[in-house]
Amino acid sequence: MPEIHATRRRALRERVVDAELDALLVTDLRNIRYLTGFTGSNAALLVHVDGDERSVFCTDGRYTTQAEAQVPDLRRVIERPSALALVAQAATHLSRGSVLGFESQHVSVEDHAAFTDAAGELLLSRAPGLVERLREVKDEVEIAALRTACAAADRALADLLEHGGLRPGRTEREVARDLENRMVDHGADGVAFPSIVAAGANSAIPHHRPTDAVLAAGDFVKLDFGAVVDGYHSDMTRTLVLGEPAQWQRDLYALVAAAQAAGTDAVRPGWEVSAVDAAARDVIVEAGYGEQFTHGLGHGVGLDVHEAPSLAKTGVGTLSACMAVTVEPGVYLAGRGGVRIEDTLVVREGTPELLTMSTKELVVA
Amino acid sequence: MPEIHATRRRALRERVVDAELDALLVTDLRNIRYLTGFTGSNAALLVHVDGDERSVFCTDGRYTTQAEAQVPDLRRVIERPSALALVAQAATHLSRGSVLGFESQHVSVEDHAAFTDAAGELLLSRAPGLVERLREVKDEVEIAALRTACAAADRALADLLEHGGLRPGRTEREVARDLENRMVDHGADGVAFPSIVAAGANSAIPHHRPTDAVLAAGDFVKLDFGAVVDGYHSDMTRTLVLGEPAQWQRDLYALVAAAQAAGTDAVRPGWEVSAVDAAARDVIVEAGYGEQFTHGLGHGVGLDVHEAPSLAKTGVGTLSACMAVTVEPGVYLAGRGGVRIEDTLVVREGTPELLTMSTKELVVA
Repeated sequence: MPEIHATRRRALRERVVDAELDALLVTDLRNIRYLTGFTGSNAALLVHVDGDERSVFCTDGRYTTQAEAQVPDLRRVIERPSALALVAQAATHLSRGSVLGFESQHVSVEDHAAFTDAAGELLLSRAPGLVERLREVKDEVEIAALRTACAAADRALADLLEHGGLRPGRTEREVARDLENRMVDHGADGVAFPSIVAAGANSAIPHHRPTDAVLAAGDFVKLDFGAVVDGYHSDMTRTLVLGEPAQWQRDLYALVAAAQAAGTDAVRPGWEVSAVDAAARDVIVEAGYGEQFTHGLGHGVGLDVHEAPSLAKTGVGTLSACMAVTVEPGVYLAGRGGVRIEDTLVVREGTPELLTMSTKELVVA
Repeated sequence: MPEIHATRRRALRERVVDAELDALLVTDLRNIRYLTGFTGSNAALLVHVDGDERSVFCTDGRYTTQAEAQVPDLRRVIERPSALALVAQAATHLSRGSVLGFESQHVSVEDHAAFTDAAGELLLSRAPGLVERLREVKDEVEIAALRTACAAADRALADLLEHGGLRPGRTEREVARDLENRMVDHGADGVAFPSIVAAGANSAIPHHRPTDAVLAAGDFVKLDFGAVVDGYHSDMTRTLVLGEPAQWQRDLYALVAAAQAAGTDAVRPGWEVSAVDAAARDVIVEAGYGEQFTHGLGHGVGLDVHEAPSLAKTGVGTLSACMAVTVEPGVYLAGRGGVRIEDTLVVREGTPELLTMSTKELVVA
């Protein structure tokens, strides 16, 4: 699909012009994949304001063939280190005093020093986040990939439950592997991040990694997992109970579910991200558990599993249509257990489009 | 094991003194794990030349409990962003004009700008690679973890072959999953990197990712895979033939095996890394395939799957006892197939200790 990448580069060039740069050096690999489709582990891209004719893609000898196939529509250079090679090229090809922007939130101080040495009469200019801001709003190709990734996770969870994969006696690690294998069975290229499977008191640890702890009757089991499809990540959390829930478990679950519904309802174009966080957080604070909701409400999701925007108290900015975000409130009672419920959603006019479809009723496994 | 971490911090302090710094801000998470044992996804560490009493560890609220358990032996601060918090603390606690080193190959230009704003009367000084250079030489705790990780990979491959997992009709992706699951069965915490399974002509692509391509009789199948144990990575490549090898396959395999043996023989304390590369490369160049060996001979392996030293033509430095490195020559014939053979080794006085034990005879699956 070279057209979609050309379209994205065109949109980026407008931002490069607005930032008063003559060219932007893109070095983050996710950003390069977004703009070119290249999936290798080393590359750099120079996006020139004049257009693709003056833009250059660079990778190293391991990826010569792959670059021909994936980036047929740009001039290609094979050299290593690739970013430095493009700075040196720009120094000879751009006119003296041209301004070359670079991704200053990704480029290290050491690499910047090397760029400066190679830049000659070019001016290097900090230009953080230009591609990331474009990536916040997804095109339909991206949303299709996210939808497929979310569906793989949904089907994996349904399978796991149907085959009795969540039962007393299994370890957290066994459940995690089972879930991950089922995602691949349902079309995932891989897992989006190491799955969280947290049973009993471990469910009160927000980012618990699976251990050999054995699931027991009466436990909360928190499952936070996702699939990758074509580089796009899904992210979903469900919390279940093994056997009949106790009253405190029902109450805690109902509280988090209400907060999650309130947060989802606030996911609309034009809303401040901090207001979306507040919509869910207020429900939990009013119930007296504000201190036990120790993280932000959600985050953007796409080529990175965590990307802009950040739906948090301290977040800045507003939602736009076609952003993909998570909504994931949680309440964690140390030593007892915790509940988190998380969906991946696409911001649409009116109510958001739900990509993770698994039931949010309290499931008794 | 707080003792081992205290020992490592003591060794680091000597380097911090040598670099004429009053303190070093460590922000790379692998380096923090090496120095403290902390395994969370956000942290910073200030190592003061005066000792652990004046050093500080910082993470955020998600990891309060985990930090208490994993880093009991250092003063802990809970704040976010953690690195910036430690710069601000240093600005108040260190005397005016003190020099604070930072990991300039990891710190971005944007973060550096924020550090500068927070540093007050402190001097910030680029201090790249101090911890990485320590990490090149492994202690016995690390070598034990590497040994276990390599054993998991060896057993997984043996299992795969024994159960007929490598046969015509299977896809590259199926083989990759099977191999990865078997590593976990044999004690891996996870996979060291996305496995490479490359069949037939795909074996000529050095970093091929598994596809739905079907394995066929007569194919070379290149398997490059590894396990993670306690954060330590194994890395091994084996190339096999499905059915009776053709003469060109035997010849190519014998050539790469000879180069691999020559490279391994050069892995000795005191050898220049470029000379180790040359020992293997010369064998391939003399056979007329120099252009088809498109990458370096090997790399250090530990908390990162690729770390210093780099065993390459352009590499600088010499080997020391207890470094862990790979030796992995390859020859790739575009459109036909390729062979790579890779071991993970520990540099010892005399011949190196082999950690990956799978046979290097041409295996016919």
